[in-house]
Amino acid sequence: MENRPLLLLSNDDGVQAKGLQELVKTLRPLADLVVVAPDGPRSGASAAITSEFPLRLTLLNNEPGLTVYQCNGTPVDCVKLALHAVMPRRPDLVVGGINHGDNSSVNVHYSGTMGVVIEGCLKQLPAVGFSLCNHAPDADFGPVLPYVRRITETVLREGLPEGTCLNVNFPDAPTFQGVRICRQTHGVWRGEYEAHRHPKGGERYWLTGWYDNLEPDSEDTDHWALDHGYVAITPTQIDMTAYGLMDTMKDWRL
Amino acid sequence: MENRPLLLLSNDDGVQAKGLQELVKTLRPLADLVVVAPDGPRSGASAAITSEFPLRLTLLNNEPGLTVYQCNGTPVDCVKLALHAVMPRRPDLVVGGINHGDNSSVNVHYSGTMGVVIEGCLKQLPAVGFSLCNHAPDADFGPVLPYVRRITETVLREGLPEGTCLNVNFPDAPTFQGVRICRQTHGVWRGEYEAHRHPKGGERYWLTGWYDNLEPDSEDTDHWALDHGYVAITPTQIDMTAYGLMDTMKDWRL
Repeated sequence: MENRPLLLLSNDDGVQAKGLQELVKTLRPLADLVVVAPDGPRSGASAAITSEFPLRLTLLNNEPGLTVYQCNGTPVDCVKLALHAVMPRRPDLVVGGINHGDNSSVNVHYSGTMGVVIEGCLKQLPAVGFSLCNHAPDADFGPVLPYVRRITETVLREGLPEGTCLNVNFPDAPTFQGVRICRQTHGVWRGEYEAHRHPKGGERYWLTGWYDNLEPDSEDTDHWALDHGYVAITPTQIDMTAYGLMDTMKDWRL
Repeated sequence: MENRPLLLLSNDDGVQAKGLQELVKTLRPLADLVVVAPDGPRSGASAAITSEFPLRLTLLNNEPGLTVYQCNGTPVDCVKLALHAVMPRRPDLVVGGINHGDNSSVNVHYSGTMGVVIEGCLKQLPAVGFSLCNHAPDADFGPVLPYVRRITETVLREGLPEGTCLNVNFPDAPTFQGVRICRQTHGVWRGEYEAHRHPKGGERYWLTGWYDNLEPDSEDTDHWALDHGYVAITPTQIDMTAYGLMDTMKDWRL
């Protein structure tokens, strides 16, 4: 058992979510697993961190090769606290997911699952996020599991350059056309609120909306891949510098 | 008044924060302002969005050239809801801040102020975030205000390429050496929790930690600029694709 890889798993749908349970089942044969996941849904948590109240960990399961904690914080809190207080050594890989819902394109910015992955990356660890384009709590993860296993094995073998991580999205389909390495699609969320009148008066705004793909014909994008039945792997980096703009701005009088 | 620019302002320290009040005072002579800001502190909110409960807006101030709402959501919620339900037209610029605390380097990922800016950018608007490297609620923003004004005027005049925004950080100093256009520093947060024993038992973990600059001698980085008394402007982009890794991965057998 000493030579088995050690993986840290988390998500943003909460420790009880089916996607995380399926991830655990799929990766257990490959590695020792430590799960530290939120105690309830944290969809859209992005890379948020908690500083206004203290975090606590609750042990849910501890058996050979599998330790599971829930945490009252965000997905990123879970990763930070796992690395600080739970992991017996630095993990070989951080895995986020399997998310119930699409994290491709601009969703990478809002995703708590990708928050897990970005935090792993910020801690200089290889990290991969898996997401299925189906929000249903009982979504069928069957078709994605062999891919999750193969991609995880590949990343464990090949590694990832420091500062990079993977955002893997699966179409909601029974089979896939293959795997494509993609770039982040350029698109915009529109019509994002539905206003309801509170019984005692006043508007309340529920988040909703639809995704407007601004480059639906670009075959190198993650959204194109998903729309055409492919597994989309978007290599992602934590350096957000707009290098192209640096030169332009040197001419600005500031 | 018709030709005056229209600016949307938000932050993550809450609508009552001094940094936002100072921002409003500084930018009022330049533009009509709409403020939609969180009803309390949302430090570290990143680009988190709220889907589990509905949002509400409360009008705090409405006078010629200045409208102020508070919102029960995150910084990104404030921007989304402002654009959806408050703004009389699309703003000419989205401004985040002035944040109480450093948002340079990897902090861009956790920052709610930069969440505001990234959301503006995702909505195809020019966007700038201002942060002062001083967490104190009564921090002295005096030295930064002329720079905030000049940078805002410059961005209104020059525009920003779509998909890019600015992350502007000020050292905590009475005067500055000048302005530098920088890249995001490579660094890691360490020692991130302090464990306290709950009176009834069990550990509670408070977020803390220190920033380890992994390239302290790199003069082109934002942290170097701040350490040496310069205003650091880090051009930032919403495309997080790791283009360099795309080619490498094409050789992987997936």
